[in-house]
Formats: sequence, structure tokens, C-alpha cells
Amino acid sequence: MTESHTLAKRYQQVRAATERLSAPLAPEDQTPQSMADASPVKWHRAHTTWFFETFVLDRAQPGYMPFDPAYRMLFNSYYNTVGAQHARPERGLLTRPGVDEISRYRAQVDEQMSFLLTDGALGDELRAVVELGLHHEQQHQELIVTDLKHLLSQNPLHPAYCPHKPETLAPVVEAPLRWARVEPGLRRIGHAGAGFAFDNEGPAHNCYVHGFALATRPVTNGEYLEFIQDGGYQRADLWLADGWLAVNEGGWQAPLYWLAQDGGERRQFTLSGVRAVEPLEPVTHLSAYEADAYARWAGARLPTEMEWEVVATARPPEGHFAETARLHPAPAPVVTEAGDEAPGSTPPVLQLFGDVWEWTSSAYAAYPGYRAPAGALGEYNGKFMANQLVLRGGSCATPAGHIRATYRNFFYPSARWQFTGLRLARDLR
Amino acid sequence: MTESHTLAKRYQQVRAATERLSAPLAPEDQTPQSMADASPVKWHRAHTTWFFETFVLDRAQPGYMPFDPAYRMLFNSYYNTVGAQHARPERGLLTRPGVDEISRYRAQVDEQMSFLLTDGALGDELRAVVELGLHHEQQHQELIVTDLKHLLSQNPLHPAYCPHKPETLAPVVEAPLRWARVEPGLRRIGHAGAGFAFDNEGPAHNCYVHGFALATRPVTNGEYLEFIQDGGYQRADLWLADGWLAVNEGGWQAPLYWLAQDGGERRQFTLSGVRAVEPLEPVTHLSAYEADAYARWAGARLPTEMEWEVVATARPPEGHFAETARLHPAPAPVVTEAGDEAPGSTPPVLQLFGDVWEWTSSAYAAYPGYRAPAGALGEYNGKFMANQLVLRGGSCATPAGHIRATYRNFFYPSARWQFTGLRLARDLR
Amino acid sequence: MTESHTLAKRYQQVRAATERLSAPLAPEDQTPQSMADASPVKWHRAHTTWFFETFVLDRAQPGYMPFDPAYRMLFNSYYNTVGAQHARPERGLLTRPGVDEISRYRAQVDEQMSFLLTDGALGDELRAVVELGLHHEQQHQELIVTDLKHLLSQNPLHPAYCPHKPETLAPVVEAPLRWARVEPGLRRIGHAGAGFAFDNEGPAHNCYVHGFALATRPVTNGEYLEFIQDGGYQRADLWLADGWLAVNEGGWQAPLYWLAQDGGERRQFTLSGVRAVEPLEPVTHLSAYEADAYARWAGARLPTEMEWEVVATARPPEGHFAETARLHPAPAPVVTEAGDEAPGSTPPVLQLFGDVWEWTSSAYAAYPGYRAPAGALGEYNGKFMANQLVLRGGSCATPAGHIRATYRNFFYPSARWQFTGLRLARDLR
Amino acid sequence: MTESHTLAKRYQQVRAATERLSAPLAPEDQTPQSMADASPVKWHRAHTTWFFETFVLDRAQPGYMPFDPAYRMLFNSYYNTVGAQHARPERGLLTRPGVDEISRYRAQVDEQMSFLLTDGALGDELRAVVELGLHHEQQHQELIVTDLKHLLSQNPLHPAYCPHKPETLAPVVEAPLRWARVEPGLRRIGHAGAGFAFDNEGPAHNCYVHGFALATRPVTNGEYLEFIQDGGYQRADLWLADGWLAVNEGGWQAPLYWLAQDGGERRQFTLSGVRAVEPLEPVTHLSAYEADAYARWAGARLPTEMEWEVVATARPPEGHFAETARLHPAPAPVVTEAGDEAPGSTPPVLQLFGDVWEWTSSAYAAYPGYRAPAGALGEYNGKFMANQLVLRGGSCATPAGHIRATYRNFFYPSARWQFTGLRLARDLR
Repeated sequence: MTESHTLAKRYQQVRAATERLSAPLAPEDQTPQSMADASPVKWHRAHTTWFFETFVLDRAQPGYMPFDPAYRMLFNSYYNTVGAQHARPERGLLTRPGVDEISRYRAQVDEQMSFLLTDGALGDELRAVVELGLHHEQQHQELIVTDLKHLLSQNPLHPAYCPHKPETLAPVVEAPLRWARVEPGLRRIGHAGAGFAFDNEGPAHNCYVHGFALATRPVTNGEYLEFIQDGGYQRADLWLADGWLAVNEGGWQAPLYWLAQDGGERRQFTLSGVRAVEPLEPVTHLSAYEADAYARWAGARLPTEMEWEVVATARPPEGHFAETARLHPAPAPVVTEAGDEAPGSTPPVLQLFGDVWEWTSSAYAAYPGYRAPAGALGEYNGKFMANQLVLRGGSCATPAGHIRATYRNFFYPSARWQFTGLRLARDLR
Repeated sequence: MTESHTLAKRYQQVRAATERLSAPLAPEDQTPQSMADASPVKWHRAHTTWFFETFVLDRAQPGYMPFDPAYRMLFNSYYNTVGAQHARPERGLLTRPGVDEISRYRAQVDEQMSFLLTDGALGDELRAVVELGLHHEQQHQELIVTDLKHLLSQNPLHPAYCPHKPETLAPVVEAPLRWARVEPGLRRIGHAGAGFAFDNEGPAHNCYVHGFALATRPVTNGEYLEFIQDGGYQRADLWLADGWLAVNEGGWQAPLYWLAQDGGERRQFTLSGVRAVEPLEPVTHLSAYEADAYARWAGARLPTEMEWEVVATARPPEGHFAETARLHPAPAPVVTEAGDEAPGSTPPVLQLFGDVWEWTSSAYAAYPGYRAPAGALGEYNGKFMANQLVLRGGSCATPAGHIRATYRNFFYPSARWQFTGLRLARDLR
Repeated sequence: MTESHTLAKRYQQVRAATERLSAPLAPEDQTPQSMADASPVKWHRAHTTWFFETFVLDRAQPGYMPFDPAYRMLFNSYYNTVGAQHARPERGLLTRPGVDEISRYRAQVDEQMSFLLTDGALGDELRAVVELGLHHEQQHQELIVTDLKHLLSQNPLHPAYCPHKPETLAPVVEAPLRWARVEPGLRRIGHAGAGFAFDNEGPAHNCYVHGFALATRPVTNGEYLEFIQDGGYQRADLWLADGWLAVNEGGWQAPLYWLAQDGGERRQFTLSGVRAVEPLEPVTHLSAYEADAYARWAGARLPTEMEWEVVATARPPEGHFAETARLHPAPAPVVTEAGDEAPGSTPPVLQLFGDVWEWTSSAYAAYPGYRAPAGALGEYNGKFMANQLVLRGGSCATPAGHIRATYRNFFYPSARWQFTGLRLARDLR
Repeated sequence: MTESHTLAKRYQQVRAATERLSAPLAPEDQTPQSMADASPVKWHRAHTTWFFETFVLDRAQPGYMPFDPAYRMLFNSYYNTVGAQHARPERGLLTRPGVDEISRYRAQVDEQMSFLLTDGALGDELRAVVELGLHHEQQHQELIVTDLKHLLSQNPLHPAYCPHKPETLAPVVEAPLRWARVEPGLRRIGHAGAGFAFDNEGPAHNCYVHGFALATRPVTNGEYLEFIQDGGYQRADLWLADGWLAVNEGGWQAPLYWLAQDGGERRQFTLSGVRAVEPLEPVTHLSAYEADAYARWAGARLPTEMEWEVVATARPPEGHFAETARLHPAPAPVVTEAGDEAPGSTPPVLQLFGDVWEWTSSAYAAYPGYRAPAGALGEYNGKFMANQLVLRGGSCATPAGHIRATYRNFFYPSARWQFTGLRLARDLR
């Protein structure tokens, strides 16, 4: 298969995956916006299309006639270089174009993109933009899931998006928490070489790593419940000052989507409706403040992104991703490896990829030597390098194939609506 | 036709009118909420149904099985006596039940209501509640129109709801502004006798009327433009203190829905899309503050509700209402009556009913001897008797047959999204 | 004594009364502002001086040299006609001019005013402005007391402003609650004739009074405690909708300044520090919403301002005012009059003046025929005729001689920091 | 001199320096609070005293009788371990205790501290707390200056705190901007060894430094004016997304305290009143967003704190500090050194210490191996390690002797009321 055909095929696959996500949703579900941080599903479907129209079709075809000239402003998310944007918190007020019209928009752009991608005339620069656009669309696939979850959670009827998938092979005992040791020394992190990566993953560069140990699996609901039962949300000494403020202003008593406890078992809202909080599943929908407070309570700390990457870099990016359609984190497998207990051996490190994004203590900042690309696409990552923290590893809502060891996701520390969890780290003594 | 059949038939007519209003709307248009004061169209359709289910079916039928028990809370607007309510500003986040489900809800309640209304067993008290429910639904029909207008106005595409209906017989000259004089003396206002009225329209009572004159038609766009061009929005001396604050905080420069002027003619958003501001049409979408400032600028004042009613009481409640489906105020007809100019004659007073609600200077308060009914329906009107002003006469979005000379509408003085305008009054010297 | 000398003497007396109020206060107490509605004591002292400088000295003396030209803006409260104003919520950030400088400002303006007032050359128009300025200053004397109370109440140390004055002759039993009946008919209210009155007290005009009865004394703490103990603050059905919102948003559980009860007796913050809530004293620091809810709970209602005035007009404006320096309402005297119980007699109506301002149900609006004066002083009262309610009768913080039966005070219904209470009314059956 | 006498003497000196700062201020100036981030001068004087009372006297003396038990809560800034705190935004409402009372508080605590410090009985642990308390008080001395500047700036009269000190020896030409190169390699930063340092300055640790060049002096007003004149505040592409939001929400057009330009020369509010913006002075009162945007415009970037320290560590912490009483940054001296232009030589790096705090791009975070101390004093620095950026080098308001090469100051990136500026850095190619 030629390279052109490969890209064309990947284009078709990624675009179809978006439509599979929205297929079960009525127009009513695709329209409102439950908070300024989230966007309507139909907006995501239009904006990802806008990306290809604006950055590929309009550049590749002289005299290109846009599907609707008003969309240039309407579905521009944050690219000042492209021009004005419709106000972010008002995306849910755009009842028109409707769902059907957006489907037509997608179809027309797809048709023209397919033509472009298969006729072989597209230059390297625009092919790279197409590649970026596909990764961009995968990011929005994850946002479709998490934004929809937030929207449905506002409904007292607790409606479900997908059927519950029981883990038929789910472990009945918790995977033991072990520690993978890394000795101090000079290391190299960041993306280099072939294969796609976002600009913010490079340049690859040296860094000095202090000795540390990384937990072999994320923190579980069961462990987090102990924190809660120990008064974790009432003890100021466990929290960063900004976190303590967030706890008190937000009235936080548990992770987002956990229901107020009224005597019986803990329950939580999931995309399959309200379900029990399973002790063996990784805890999720935590802010970085909660992750940090838990780590302090546990006598540990969050890893830096450097530490996380040093451990993850040797491992294949495999795990529990969106394709299982479970859309909820799963318990860690109980792995018994030969020689597991041998002195000096490194225990297997589980669930680095998939299940839950793992908060790190690293501020999202430019790597040494980083320079944002020129033009509109330079706004993709660089301008957000303030006030956010890096998360690593992907989640149960991340499309398989989208994640890498060098991948840097970023959110404000107060954000809770992504599938965010944590893995402990500690200093070597 | 028996009385039962009459009520059953009116029930069917009023319920059908609601559905006619929403029929052209896609599910996307019926779902979001553009501000806390407004509600989604599908919410209006469900809430009016909830009214009959809660206050009639549930009371009339022992062991009544509700369509969905969760709706009792979900579609309760503000009746504390009924129980908890879903938070008003979050009505637009209820993607479920969807439009089809709400249609089923309406159909099922209608079926049971029709049975109840035609089998003749319904007592007088519940028949009175049905009557109230029909007037209640007509109020929500007007809100469907005005809330939808506000929602569509947020869309930069300026979508239209209905086709523009040109006034083929529209006058080409402005009806002259004359003054109908009323001499001082003791009068009687308020509802008494047969026919439906809301509780707040009574009791009928004496009041002393000071001599005044009432303008023979509402203020027009052409007149209001002179106020704007004379710097009306920049002159603090014309405004109430709270109004001046609203002007400055809201950046008001013109009535709501007038577009920023960019050189050419004034244009405004209407339910038929963006159209020219027609000088002969009554000005609308004014706050009471703007109405008051205009009146002061014009050397006049707003009428009291007493003054308005004294003039209106002798006239039939006829005018330009929602049934024309124009949903926009129309110019006053130019009436030449025999003897119009005869000394001492009273000029015809036009457009008292329909076209635009007319702000009065009267605070919405209890009439002497008023007592709110016991129970939940006592919450209908009485508890809003604070901080609001009375408006009179109905608008182009009011269903014909819904309005009366004694009818008291009420909104906060800052409200602009109803079809609100003004008619001048002045003291007799 | 000539008229000139009388006005000069009154000028000196009123101005001295202001200084007596601030004399016990350190500069620290005179500087901050505890909420946007309140002003610093030293601002009140400067603003009242600014009034005479701006509206008298500057007009009477060609080429008048102001004490400091910057004060024209700095101490202008809300007169747009005079020019720009320093932002109201930032009055507490003006550390300069300091207290001493403001004393110098007052002294210099007083010296020039005294000269003007005694040399007999001041025309009638400006003499009327001086008269207005003195009543204006008396209003600010009351605000000095209430604004200071609010400021001191923010301090967890609960500092006192003045020593507690026990009522040595205080009654030991509650004055019985009786009802003074007024028969229906045409009456006349509003100011007419000689003597000073604010513009908003006129014109005198006819009104039709429906039969009513007015309570012979204000509601007491003891009675209000019964309302609280009966769940008054938890029962939505007792409240206006806006009031219920205020209760819930403000977390109101009792009148302002009542301390959270912790087992023992109810205590409140007063200008003499924290003291017991005395059951026989009139309840005070109520919003209009609380007054209205109490009245509804008690099976009564608030009087209209017309009703209040009809009763008060025949009585001398005597009562417990600021001059006692108690600055807290006192119990009603127990009056036994000859013939008190005789059939058809009218019981004595107590405490109409002084002790607590009495909320009425009347919106603050223009009387028929009212026209605000031209120029800056037209802004004194007229532009506030929106969203506020009328209060009548003065309080324990009102200077004696300042109040009249026609006097109309006005505040937003949510305001609680004035000495506001209520007197019940009810319809005649 | 014994160690005890040394500490006692330093105690006396530092405490006296605080009083010298507040001596010129009237009680009015010491009382209000102009924003939640700032505190009243008299609060600073009391809180620093509270520190010694709470953490030294109360621990050293069994049965210690506090000056006023209420102060424990009233002047606790943020130590949850000590107990409840008076709400931060309400510090300006505490008119009592007044200035004189706080002077008495300081005197009494000083007397007891002097006794403790000279009698030699104080153990090492508490001596270390005294040392910390003195550095704490020096930090508050700087805040007294910056908080006061913010308060006075709110006054339209633009009052001055101190006389202007002209730089009699001020250079007439701008020091040329040169670059000091640092080669890549492993370095060590952080505090180790003798001498006081805050806990957050350690542990000393290895880090890998990429090759970079650091500007030899801070950016000047003249240079920053070019940025403004080039449309810097209007060009979204120069700004971080959060910064662009701040620019637009805050209406930023220039550094804080620069007055709106009305034709003539640029002027700014200083602690000596309104003065011209001097082109040769370092620009100050910038947010980190403005510093970052300027750097991007200039084709450079902010240094990391590691880079800054690597350069600064070899230089003595000398510069222009608070003791000059100028309280405004001064131009860089024009230094001509022998061999300045010699190939390979390092140009002198000026003004690393004093004049303006220099924003770095480093998030304020724990150094590897950092552990907050146990108990209340562990709250001093550690809990603020979120959302803030590190600043280095001290300012014209920092007491001499307070700063070090390892010193880490931290503020939110939006903060502008400190004397904050920037120094450029760039990568080596």
C-alpha cells in the first residue's frame, strides 16, 4: 500500500470513529454545554471538520469554497491567527447548524479530503497537517466522552450512554502495590526520531534524575476510600493551600461523580449509569489537588513527568483504551511473573497506559530548546504553558494508538472531569 | 354544547396551539437555555403538562400512576408546596427526556385529561383548576416565543423561526399622537363578576384617579430613534439611578435585539431574521428603565396601572395577537373617525391590546383585600409581589382571548426579552 | 431673633451634632467601609461639608476658592449634574484626606457659612438650600450611626461605641397589642403648607383608604422569637419569592446582628457591645422580606404608607430619638388611659415616631403630580424611585426634630443595617 | 559579642526597621486594605509580632499570658495548625485594635523577647525560630511597602509616602544589553551549608543545565515602551493564553501604576507621587504574563530559576535595596571594565540583586528530596507549591541582607503589585 493510501485509510478510520461515538446520541444530547470547559458533542464534530477545512482544504485548493463561510468563526476554537472565535462558554447556545447539517458538513469535507489524499498531489507539509489533524480528532474523541459524561451527570435521572460491561475476568484480589526503583543519573527524555509526536514532546534532552521508586499500579478506589475515611477531606495539613481552598469552595467530599453517601455502599455516576464504587478499580475523576493530598497522606508524592517517562519509555503503549467501549477504568491484573520476588528484580509496572491519566507534579512548560511552530498551528500547544500540570499515559477514553511514552497531556490542577487518577512515587533513601 | 364539552374542547385547542408553536423546531432548538430567566421550549411543553398531571390528574384519580415519578421534581417550576424543584438555571442541561419522550408525555396526559373532561365527573373545584391550567399554558405559549427569540438571537447566524409577513396594508404615515383625557374622581378597578381572571386581578376596589391624559398609541421606533439620536443613552439626568446603572453595566445603546449600527440603516433581530427597524412600528424590547427615560425625555411619564385600566376597561380586548403568526408588533392603523376633531370628543385609543406589553409605573402589589389562595396554587401569583412592575395589554405574542382589561402581567424593570413597549401619560394641568 | 440668626444658629447646632457623633472615634474607626452601601464616618463628615460648599458657598460667592478643588469629585455622592464621582465602593480606600484635614475642611466651610448666614445677604433660594443641607446632614448623622454599627459588627472583638444605658424605668410587662381602626373613605396625604419637607413628600393629594386596623405598637423581639421558633426561616410558604432567595443565599436565621445561638439566651451585637435580646424591645434590623414574612405568619400584613400616614398625621412627632444616646430601640411604655377600654374608643398608638423605622408595603414612587426640581438638587430624591420600599416614622438613630408624619424614607427590601422594624396592619372585615 | 547578644541585637534592629517604615503613616493610612492580596500596614505590624508571641514566647514560657487571647485568631495569617484565622479579605475592617494598641503589643512582646534572647536560656530550636521570625518580618517589611503603594494608588489624589530621591549620579546613557554565556553541563543548585535559608531553598541538588545566555541587565522602561508602541498589548500571538485573557479582562495597556497616556510623556504613580517614566530605569510592576510576552517579542525567553542561580551564585548579593529609601528601581550603572570586549570574556552581570524581582519561567515546586518541616512552621512555604512562579534577586523594597542567590520568592503569574521585572535569557545555538 502506498503512503498516500495509508494516510487516506487512517483518515477514514479516525473520522468514522468519531461518528461511532456520536451515533447513539440524540440531537438533544449533542447540543447543550454543561460548563465553559466542556463543549457540545455536535460542536466537537464540527470543529474537527473545521480543522481539516481550514488548515488543509483551504490551503491546498486555490479558490476553495467553504461549506459555510460563517463556520470559520463559529467553529474556531482558539486560533487567534485564523481570526475571531465564537465565545467558548456560548457553544451550547448554537442550536443551528443542527446535527444533520453538521453530518452534511462532515460528509462534504470528507469527500474532498479523500480526493486530496488519494490523488497523491498533497505535499509533505500539508500531509503533516493531516497527520496532526487526525491526532487532533482523537483528542476530541476523548473530550466527546468526558464532556458528555459531565453533561449527563447534571441530569437527576442519571441517564446512561452505553451498557455496562462487566469484567468477566476481573481479578478478585487487589494487585499488590510494589515499587519499581530507578537509580540516579543523567537520562534523556522527550520525543526524537520517526513517528508522529506533538511539538511539545520535544526536543529530546538530557536531564538529571534523582533516585526514586514508582508504584507498580495506580491508586485504587479501595485505597482512596481509606483516605476519605481517615478524614482526608477535613485535614488542612494534607493539602496545598490552593487545594484546600478548592475543597472548601467546591464542597468536595469525594471524587467527582461519587454520589453523596446515604448509609449504604458508595455509588458513582458512570457512562453506564449509577454503579457501585468498585474497590479494585483505579480511582478516577480526581483533581491534582486531591491526588497530591492523597499522596501526602500515603507518605509518598506524585512523580515528576520525567520520572514517569523514564519508567514508561521502555514499555509498549498497551493497555485498556476507548476501543473496549467500557469507558471506565478497570482493575489492575494480578500478574505473577517468574522471578517476581527475586532480589534486585524490577517488579512489573502495570497500567502505565490506559485506564486513568496520571497526574504528575510537573508544571506544563517548554522543554529546553522548544520553539512553537510559526503560524496558526503554533497556537496548538505552546500558548497553554502556564498554570497547568502534565498528565501522562492516557485513559480508558483515549483511542488506542494515540498515546506514547513521551505524550504530555495538560490540565489545570482543579480539573476533575477527565479520567484522571494517580500513581505514587517516592524518593530513594 | 354542554359546559363539559366546551372545556374539553378548549383544552384540546389550547394544548394543540402549544404543539403548533413547537412543530417547526428541531430537537436542537428545543433543548438549550440561553439565560436563567428563560426556559427551553421542550421544558415549557413538559411543565405545562406537569401542571395538569400534578394539579388535576393526581388529585382526581386515586392511585394515579404518574408518567414518570421523577418528573414531579424535574418539571416543577417554583411550587415549594409540591416539593423540591430542579434548579432553574440548569433546565437547559436536561437532554433527557428528549423531545419525543415529551411528546409521549403530553399525549398520555391529554388522553387522560380528555377522558376526565368528557365523562362529566370532574367537580367544580378541579374544573376551575383546568381553566387555570389553560391560561397557564397560554402564558407559556408566549414564553415559548420570547425565550426562543432570546436563544436564537445568541447565534451569530441570526436564524429565523418563521417567515416574514409583510404588512400588505401597512400605513405609510404615522398615526398622530393624541391624548385621551380622563377627569379626576373616584373609580373602580379590578376584576369582578363572571369569567376567568387570575387571583391578582381582584378584588375590584375603589381608587381615586387624578386627572390625566393617555396617549392614543404606543411610542414608535421612529420616535424612539429621536431619543437615541438626542443622546438619550448618554444623559444621566433622564434616568432613574438603577436604570443608569443598568445602562452602564449592560452597555445598553438601543433596545434589545437592535444590532450595532454600522453606518447604514438600523437593523434588528426578529423571529423572521434580521430586518430593518421600521419607524412606524411600536418600539419593543425595552426595559422599564428605558421606557421611563424615554417618557421623561418626552416631557411625559408612564401611566399607572390604574390609569391604564380606567381607559381600557370600556374597550374590547381586540388587537394584534399571536394568531397572526407575525410575532412582531405592527404599526398603528391610521384611523379617521367621524367627529374625530370635534371639540370635547375623545380620540380613539389604539393598540391598547396586543402588539406590545405596556410598562406602567405601578409596582406589582396586592390589591386591597387580596389574599392568596391556600395551597400550592396560592404560589401562582402572590409570592412575586416584590420588585416587579405591572405591564398591561398583551403583545403580538399573546394568544388572542388570553388578555383582559384587568390583566396584570409583571416583570422586573430590567427585563427586556418580552415584547415590552410603552404608552405615554401626563397630568392634566 | 431674626430669621437669619435662627438659621445661623440651627446651622451651628446641626453641624456640631455631627462632630459630637464622631468625637469618640479614632481615625482608624472613621476610615474603612464595610460594604458598598455604607460609607466611612470621615467620608460622611466631608460629604456633608461638600454639600454646603458646592450648593451654597460656590453659588453665593463669585470667584469662590474651594478648600481643595479635588474634593468636588472626591466627596460628590451621586450628583451627576455636578460632575464625576469617586466610585462608591472605594470610599474606604481614601486614607487621605485624613481625619484632621477633614476637620479643617469642616471648620473653614463653617466659618464662611456663618459669615454668609449672619450678614443677611443670602437670598431666599440659597437659604432654602441651606435648610435642605441641614436636613441632609441629619440624614447622614443617622447613617454615621448605622454605617459605624455595621463596621464594628465585622470585628470579632465586638467593640462598643457607647456605654450601655439601662432603661431604669423600663416596663416589666409587654404593652398589649391592640388595633386602631380606620374607616374607609377619601383622605388626603402628603406635605402641604409651611415648614420644611423633602420634595418627595408632596404634593398633598387625595387617596381612597380602605378600612383597616393598625397595631398600637411595633412587633417586639419576644414576638419575633416565636416566629423563629415556629420555623419561620424554614417555611417557604411564608415568604415572598425574592425574600426566600435572600434567606437562602444569605443564610439568614435571625435579624441582622443577632449572634448564632449556642445553647443559652439569644444575644445581639449593639453599639454598646454584645447584649441580651430583650423580649420587650421592638425587633430591629429586619429586611422588608422578614417583616413581610412575620406579618404573614401573624395573620396580618404590612401597612401601606398611606395607612400609616393617616394614623400618624394627627399625632405629634415625639418619641425615642438619637439624642438619648442609647442608639437602640426601647420597649413600648405601658399606657393606661382613662376610657381605654370603652367601646368604640381608639386605643393609644405608641412609638409611631422613633425607636424603629417601620417598613410599609408601598413601593417608593412619585406622588401624583410630583415633579423633581430642576438642576442637581433634583437628583436628591426623584431618581431613586425604583425598587425601593417606603419606611416611616424614624428610629432611635434619627435626630429629634428631623422626622414628620409625611416623611418618606426608602431602602431596598433586602436592606437590614438600618434600625428597621415593623408594625402590623390588617383589613377590616 | 556572644551569639545571644548578636541575635538579640539583630532582633532589635529588624523590629525597629518595621517601625521606621510605619512611622510616617497616619492611622488612616495603616488601616484599610485595597485588595484581598494586600494587608493593612497595622495588620503587618501585629502579625509579625504574633509570630514571635505564638511560636517563641508561648512555647518558651510555660503559662505564658498572651497580650490579648483574641489576637491568636485575629492575626493568624494562614497557619491552620495554630487554629482558626480571621478572613483574609476582611483585614481592613478591623478598626480595633488601633495603631496605638498595636504599638503597645509590639513593645510588650519586644520586651519579653529581649529578656528571653539575652538571658541565654533559649534552646537552639527556638533560636532557629527567632531567626526565621526575623526573616519573616523582613518579608513583611517589603509587603508593607508594596501593599501601601497599592493602597495609595487607589486615591485619585496620588498621595506620596516618601520624598523623591533624584539619582544624582544617574547614568545618562543606557547600559548596553550584553549576554553572559553559560555552557551546558551538570550543576548544583540550592542551599547547603551554614547560614540561614528558608526550607524551600534546599536540598542542594544536581541538575543538568542546557547551554544558555543571560542578559547582563534587566529590561528597561525604554525597551518596554518599544514593545507597547509596537502593539504588544494588542497582539494575541505574543501571549500565553491565560495572559491574553488577563490582558483583556483587566484592560491592561501598560505596567501597573502607569497612568493612561494623554498626549504627553508617560507618567507613573510611585511612592514619591506621580513621576515621569524614566527610560533608563528597569521596568517594574509587570505580571509574569507581560514579562513572558515581552521576552517573546524580543526574540528571547525568561530564564529558568536554575539558570538564574547558576549565574548569580558566584556573585555577592549586593545591589539597590530598601535602605536607600528610594523605593523605586534605579538605572543600571554603565560599567566599563578592562578587557570588557576581550574575546571570550564574560561581561559583568548587573543588578542581579535588588531593584526588581526577576520573573523566571520556573513553577514554584519542591526541590528533589524536599520535605516540609513538621508542625505549623511546615506551612510556611510548602503548601504554596502550586500555580505560582519563582522570582529571584530581590527588589528596591527588599531589606539588604535578606536576599541570597538561592532565595526563591513566588507569586501567581498575574500578580503585579510587587516590584517585579524581568531579565532576558536565550538558548545557545
